[in-house]
Amino acid sequence: MNFHSKLVEEAVDSISRLPGIGKKTALRLVLHLLKQPKEESQSLSESIIKLREGIRYCSECHVISDTLECTCRNMVTDESIICVVEDTPDVLAIRSTGQYNGMFHVLGGRISPIDGIGPEELHIESLMGRIDESNGSVKEVILALSGTMEGDTTAFYITRLLTGKEIRITTIARGIPVGGELEYADEVTLGRSITTRTLFSQE
Amino acid sequence: MNFHSKLVEEAVDSISRLPGIGKKTALRLVLHLLKQPKEESQSLSESIIKLREGIRYCSECHVISDTLECTCRNMVTDESIICVVEDTPDVLAIRSTGQYNGMFHVLGGRISPIDGIGPEELHIESLMGRIDESNGSVKEVILALSGTMEGDTTAFYITRLLTGKEIRITTIARGIPVGGELEYADEVTLGRSITTRTLFSQE
Repeated sequence: MNFHSKLVEEAVDSISRLPGIGKKTALRLVLHLLKQPKEESQSLSESIIKLREGIRYCSECHVISDTLECTCRNMVTDESIICVVEDTPDVLAIRSTGQYNGMFHVLGGRISPIDGIGPEELHIESLMGRIDESNGSVKEVILALSGTMEGDTTAFYITRLLTGKEIRITTIARGIPVGGELEYADEVTLGRSITTRTLFSQE
Repeated sequence: MNFHSKLVEEAVDSISRLPGIGKKTALRLVLHLLKQPKEESQSLSESIIKLREGIRYCSECHVISDTLECTCRNMVTDESIICVVEDTPDVLAIRSTGQYNGMFHVLGGRISPIDGIGPEELHIESLMGRIDESNGSVKEVILALSGTMEGDTTAFYITRLLTGKEIRITTIARGIPVGGELEYADEVTLGRSITTRTLFSQE
């Protein structure tokens, strides 16, 4: 596309580098910004800079935070469990279920050789450090990773590191979603939901 | 959503104010920016500010431009026709067909009382000015507006202003798209394509 304007071109280029946003969407956003008052663009631009410069990661659980010590400690009532997740949104999602009040550990991704991400790029060493420093107070590690090949690889890697330690390793249940129809489930999921069936409770 | 981070919250708020981007997409973009090098966020932020501060509109045709005098004059070989469009992308789209080499006039929107946009908000007066100043050299006005109620309203308004002047008023053809199946066309479009049928040519 030729816009006859360097400024528009540059803005479209920058915006379309974001994931899921193509040139056409970027142009639509640019035209929207041009129609809004100047303050709108200013606040957008400032919040992006402030975000990138100011963001910190909790030195313990690696959750995104404004300070180096996040509020994770205050919200935890059970310090015997660590839930290992890939990224910060997973923490928010699990917290919002209200079913878990243990600790979290964000890996920052998953092992994916094709993208050049090995175990060293992830916060796996610091996970081991946390477990060792706890002097046995951590009794369980929940692997809440995505159900993809990379997620499974990461789970296997962590499991291997933990063998020998007296720690229960669990993973979140895979199965038919609540409200889901059996008919539309894929075979692997349905198969797993049968092999890992649980006792029926009437609560 | 509660991110336990003011910076993330502010960035998500700003980004999700853009059209077509919700809170979840905004969070995904924020997490993407955090994983990229700092320069990426910086260049995005700068290009938005530079765009908003530096952009100008051609004083004659109102196309988005970096200067007050755009390149529109140089590209025009036929100064007897003005094609009236709603926004700058329409100019780019029509130019890229290679079927038109006349002048353009961007209205900057369409008459839409429900959004508080009356004829005064659009560049209709300057269109009349251009036609009057041309001393009769403009022979035709093509109304290339969208086929919605607001587009039609705008077209009717301009037509009324032009009555009495010796100018041919045309509109782009409505009909079945090239390669389109009759079966799937809506009745109104199909009806219009019959009433405004053209002579069959074998070129």
